[in-house]
Amino acid sequence: MVGNGLCKFRKNMMKIFTYTFLTLILVSCSNAQDISSNDDEKVYKEYNWRLVTSWPKNYPGLGMAPERIADLVEEMSNGQMKITVFGAEEQVPAFGVFDAVSNGSHQMGHSGGYFWKGKVPAAQFFTSVPFGLTADEINAWVNRGGGLELWREIYAPFNIYPIPAGNTGTQMFGWFNKEINSLEDIKGLKMRIPGIGGEVLKEAGGIPVTLPGGELFTALQTGVIDATEWVGPYNDLTFGFHQAAKYYYYPGWHEPGPMLELLINKDAWESLPKHLQVIIETASKAVNQDMLDEYLAKNNQALTELVNVHGVELRKLPDDVIEEFRKISNKILNDLSEEDETIAKVYSSYLKFKKDVSAYHKISEDAFIEARNK
Amino acid sequence: MVGNGLCKFRKNMMKIFTYTFLTLILVSCSNAQDISSNDDEKVYKEYNWRLVTSWPKNYPGLGMAPERIADLVEEMSNGQMKITVFGAEEQVPAFGVFDAVSNGSHQMGHSGGYFWKGKVPAAQFFTSVPFGLTADEINAWVNRGGGLELWREIYAPFNIYPIPAGNTGTQMFGWFNKEINSLEDIKGLKMRIPGIGGEVLKEAGGIPVTLPGGELFTALQTGVIDATEWVGPYNDLTFGFHQAAKYYYYPGWHEPGPMLELLINKDAWESLPKHLQVIIETASKAVNQDMLDEYLAKNNQALTELVNVHGVELRKLPDDVIEEFRKISNKILNDLSEEDETIAKVYSSYLKFKKDVSAYHKISEDAFIEARNK
Repeated sequence: MVGNGLCKFRKNMMKIFTYTFLTLILVSCSNAQDISSNDDEKVYKEYNWRLVTSWPKNYPGLGMAPERIADLVEEMSNGQMKITVFGAEEQVPAFGVFDAVSNGSHQMGHSGGYFWKGKVPAAQFFTSVPFGLTADEINAWVNRGGGLELWREIYAPFNIYPIPAGNTGTQMFGWFNKEINSLEDIKGLKMRIPGIGGEVLKEAGGIPVTLPGGELFTALQTGVIDATEWVGPYNDLTFGFHQAAKYYYYPGWHEPGPMLELLINKDAWESLPKHLQVIIETASKAVNQDMLDEYLAKNNQALTELVNVHGVELRKLPDDVIEEFRKISNKILNDLSEEDETIAKVYSSYLKFKKDVSAYHKISEDAFIEARNK
Repeated sequence: MVGNGLCKFRKNMMKIFTYTFLTLILVSCSNAQDISSNDDEKVYKEYNWRLVTSWPKNYPGLGMAPERIADLVEEMSNGQMKITVFGAEEQVPAFGVFDAVSNGSHQMGHSGGYFWKGKVPAAQFFTSVPFGLTADEINAWVNRGGGLELWREIYAPFNIYPIPAGNTGTQMFGWFNKEINSLEDIKGLKMRIPGIGGEVLKEAGGIPVTLPGGELFTALQTGVIDATEWVGPYNDLTFGFHQAAKYYYYPGWHEPGPMLELLINKDAWESLPKHLQVIIETASKAVNQDMLDEYLAKNNQALTELVNVHGVELRKLPDDVIEEFRKISNKILNDLSEEDETIAKVYSSYLKFKKDVSAYHKISEDAFIEARNK
């Protein structure tokens, strides 16, 4: 072992000399200008950042996205940047992520924009709105249709730089202890449903509640709520909702393809050298797709288990209930646009993209799915 | 300028000392073992690689994917790795990419697996097969459903390491100078259509032709072919196919979500340090999504222009033609499985995933799209 240690020491010393030699060559060649145009200290120093999330630590899907971003950043930067990920409540509450990143107590956060609707009403469009864009569609709108520029504009006053970082795909409407046979059954229904979906429920006579994921099982079991939406089969199975509710309703009209967000304190972001910024953006984009891949690959397996092993009853929402929810959704989104200039700007961009992409999908993916399923 | 130069020199020297100092700290701490386990020369040397493609240089969508991968790799590695991208025919023919990477004349290539069906019949499953997986579904199968392991296994004998790197989304069936009103109209139809789609056409009485993109317009205009598939509105508009054909048919039953591939010579791949390998994999995953975003955002705009400005006639394939194509497709895929052990293994994994994901999509995204479109 001692011999090995000495050998390692010599190897390390050789590395240092090679390193220095290569650096000397580097700075004396044409790259010198590019390198010195960055603040040198910035380019080579080590970064140790902290990331808070709205999810239980290592929670499948949602909670693994920030872990994977952290791993990729450390590997791609060859150890120059390390990010420590904290689960909800470990350092800040589940819904304290936005404030923690905004005030700089933590450099990074991972969450969903619709949790901040009280503070930034337009943020909801960058997660999901009822009868809105699917996962692929919101990716295209945000990354290639002007969405990201708007998103960064509305988070800037909070000193936050957002990056898309995950999507669960179309969610299920959720778990119910009451049957929904008509609009009458919505009246008085106490359901955990955040964002605009909750407002639609309220307008239809229900009582929307906002609770973090960790409290849902008990709330459902004790009758504090009659129903809850969460994500889809993969996550719902982990939480054991089938042990606390009778029916599993679809489709997830309220969250057709919710996009998650990586939040970065703007001062911290600007303190990074360019290559680490590109590393973070690229890791997030890779994880944005990876999360959807994971959900798609695991949801059906979980669904089969829920239905075949646990005897869960799958129910489709009645057409007239869907129709009414759609009517209310459009009204609420229009009303919000009339009251709030920022929402008007975001919604108009969103709506135009949705119209165009729906028309195209009808002769491409939708037409194909119809042909395949026949 | 001289003063500036001197100042730069001093700054550079400071950087070298800081660099060396940090390295000294690094090697004396617990990371020493990780670092010295890599070949030192490998970790710090510069890499200049060449990438050949099957697309015209800078071709929108398809041809931009390798350019973006090259940019991301250079930025994330802070200039350590540079990749020069060549269009089809610049260094090797469009369909010579696989061989160039296999024999190591070029370290990298960007192409589509179904072009190599003569050499590696099972490769087609990693691009697209008729009535198969959509873009999201093939991403999930390849990345999270066992597909990638199979893909790497079947390319290994050719000394090639494949990475998913782009998807166009569901394509259009294509451009026709003959109307398709029944199966009779398929008989004798000369159509450019590669892969298993071409075999289906042949079995239905048509004459499939394989030609690179650059030759299609002239072939269509001069009547060498009666029809061609290419990609979708965005690319088809650029090639001007509407000036050479009368009808634009959908749905793209033959290519529901073709995945593109980054090919890497295995020896070259293994010569890279770990952080550059992760950088290349992550850049490719980010670009895999970026290409789909780009196509989704631009296809509808192009479709509107084709229909409203150029008066292109959109046509849906008759139901009985789709039905017959589906029947033949299934037969061909089953026959291929019986003849070829590798195809049998790949197809069985593909088919199981397709069955599961279709069932899940019916109560999630498909059910949502139905609710949204009502």
